[in-house]
Amino acid sequence: MPVNYATPAPEALHVVAGIRLGVAAAGIRKKDRQDLTVIAVEPGASVAGVFTQNRFCAAPVQVCRAHLAERGNADIRALVINTGIANAGTGEQGLAASNTTCAELAALLKVEASQILPFSTGVILEPLPVDRLVAGLPTAVADLAPNHWHAAAHAIMTTDTIAKAASRQLSINGQTITITGISKGAGMIKPNMATMLGFVGTDAGVAPQLLADTLKAVADESFNAITVDGDTSTNDSFVTIATGKSGVQFSTGQEAGWPEFAAALTAVAQELAQAIVRDGEGATKLITVDVSGGQSRKECRAVAYAVAHSPLVKTAFFASDPNLGRILAAIGYAGIKDLDVDTIRVWLASRSGETLVAEQGGRAAVYTEDQGAAIMKDAEITVRIDLARGAAQATVWTCDLSYDYVKINADYRS
Amino acid sequence: MPVNYATPAPEALHVVAGIRLGVAAAGIRKKDRQDLTVIAVEPGASVAGVFTQNRFCAAPVQVCRAHLAERGNADIRALVINTGIANAGTGEQGLAASNTTCAELAALLKVEASQILPFSTGVILEPLPVDRLVAGLPTAVADLAPNHWHAAAHAIMTTDTIAKAASRQLSINGQTITITGISKGAGMIKPNMATMLGFVGTDAGVAPQLLADTLKAVADESFNAITVDGDTSTNDSFVTIATGKSGVQFSTGQEAGWPEFAAALTAVAQELAQAIVRDGEGATKLITVDVSGGQSRKECRAVAYAVAHSPLVKTAFFASDPNLGRILAAIGYAGIKDLDVDTIRVWLASRSGETLVAEQGGRAAVYTEDQGAAIMKDAEITVRIDLARGAAQATVWTCDLSYDYVKINADYRS
Repeated sequence: MPVNYATPAPEALHVVAGIRLGVAAAGIRKKDRQDLTVIAVEPGASVAGVFTQNRFCAAPVQVCRAHLAERGNADIRALVINTGIANAGTGEQGLAASNTTCAELAALLKVEASQILPFSTGVILEPLPVDRLVAGLPTAVADLAPNHWHAAAHAIMTTDTIAKAASRQLSINGQTITITGISKGAGMIKPNMATMLGFVGTDAGVAPQLLADTLKAVADESFNAITVDGDTSTNDSFVTIATGKSGVQFSTGQEAGWPEFAAALTAVAQELAQAIVRDGEGATKLITVDVSGGQSRKECRAVAYAVAHSPLVKTAFFASDPNLGRILAAIGYAGIKDLDVDTIRVWLASRSGETLVAEQGGRAAVYTEDQGAAIMKDAEITVRIDLARGAAQATVWTCDLSYDYVKINADYRS
Repeated sequence: MPVNYATPAPEALHVVAGIRLGVAAAGIRKKDRQDLTVIAVEPGASVAGVFTQNRFCAAPVQVCRAHLAERGNADIRALVINTGIANAGTGEQGLAASNTTCAELAALLKVEASQILPFSTGVILEPLPVDRLVAGLPTAVADLAPNHWHAAAHAIMTTDTIAKAASRQLSINGQTITITGISKGAGMIKPNMATMLGFVGTDAGVAPQLLADTLKAVADESFNAITVDGDTSTNDSFVTIATGKSGVQFSTGQEAGWPEFAAALTAVAQELAQAIVRDGEGATKLITVDVSGGQSRKECRAVAYAVAHSPLVKTAFFASDPNLGRILAAIGYAGIKDLDVDTIRVWLASRSGETLVAEQGGRAAVYTEDQGAAIMKDAEITVRIDLARGAAQATVWTCDLSYDYVKINADYRS
């Protein structure tokens, strides 16, 4: 059961002029399941991507990077996504399979292979059945339509218990801009099938380099700020397509309306990223770890991740136990050598209220266990930490660690 | 149930000339439980310690560091250890409590307060009931005897399911040297009561500076090479006492017999440290992660810890599932930016045999799932990783992640 999340209805996912989506059941790992998605893009769009930092990156990630470099974040004409097999740890044969996928889709769409970006998610170390994938492409292409975001959100699922999508519109100088996206992922598991993928489209026009630069910042605030179990997949990818069909064009980021557009893009990416945490394996709670007062964003992230990765903190949240000691200890071992623990303050908050829980190296004088327990019972909890040594800030989202996490990850073969 | 571990019998723990131990039930947190231990040291011994790097370090750790600095690793006359309350996150009041403990024990032993090292383990953020502790000191002092290692091993337990001790003797130039030690810890839990403590005594003589230098290297191969859940406690401490009563004296580390002595000291520390992992919360398996071929020890440790901390790897071990993808992915995200995944080789080994499982960026040609499954069924498993880019090496020990880990950590208040 995802934490406070439901897939938007198909009609709530606004179409993005210049983007069409189509799905097919190619039988890549299981029969009669839609496992192949094509996202077709009109000429003239900008396309940018950020990818896994894992050294064991999958073949499609390598091909994406090469094609985006060759095309300079422009002239990409389609994305192709398969589930079932991740095509990771598959060597030269895997690269050939990804290249064949691109070439075959390019032939169907009458474009070049380097104008296609391939994505795979599923079992790693197994060969991609490229013949079955290719055989499914004509069906996916025939299915292409602007209003198939909902179907695509379902077709890219693996261990996800729910399809993930988000959409919003904003008005800039009297013109309407649409941003719609889909994502998948739930922890890196079941057998490593839970790669994180995110695809966002907008009808705003954004110059290729501006889009590439912006996407890094957006990812930093969304897909790169979530953690389920600390593991990073071989296939993680986040791609944004800006078609320009709305008529609104951003070239430098100095234009009127750019801050509003960038904020909306970040909000959609955060909604898609948080949906992954809400659907984390065994998750019963969404935990926001908000660290401020750091000397750098890096040290704020280090503290936030130390808290968000701690199995002790995560099991305490599962148990609705306001275990301050575990939170303080995690802050203490985050690796900031000159951290003065006497100046740190920590709050717990939820819709039930907010309370200062720690100050001066120990429990806050005002804190009561009853207050802490009331806050911890909610499904969405914020840990707010003020390091009181600078002006930097960072936020990370995670979920709790439950019996079901172990069950899902230990039992997936049975 | 600890993995393949039983406490040695009292008579298997050789006395160490110059060291006496005594225990008492001081009622610090629970009545009628031995919770106070005094270790008395004859004059002339060298004493060295390594302590938690957690910035929220406990009051006794701060006092230990100050007393060792003041005494230059010499002239320490006693250690005092209480369980029940960790005296961490307790501010000035906590420091005063530790200082009072030292002063009161010093008065009983007719030495100075700075000749005492205090240790606490138990609940953090709660005040130490120093009056009850002090009231128990005369009983512990009256109990002092050379053959009370076994009783002390029991008295320092918190969430441990079994007392941990190790002892061995070696002959150097016809003289017998004894090394005996005790340890406690099982994960940082129940409510943060599982601080890791290790105390080792030897009747070898070791010059104060040589002992301090050696202890860092020994800790690096033992207490600093284990992980249950990645969390570091506020009170972790490892102390070694060298009394010199055997007549064998090491001053520079250049003497005949030194390498043998240092190896034996490391072996005892490893046995004590591994006992903590074998008794890790919910542990059903002992996992050795052995990384070689690195450019530095640091990068070998980074890879070993990435594998040992991965919840996905740990649940796979619990499920006896040879999930190569999870191991490779963990190696890939260990943070070595120029790692060439095509040269890495990975083996799985147990008493059932050894098999190459990964090479050239994917599954090894010789590997079969049946082989992997047979190896994974054993209670002690080694993951051997050759990075093939240098001559450095590092080993880390951990345990698997089971339902019981979550149960113990989520349910401890009930």
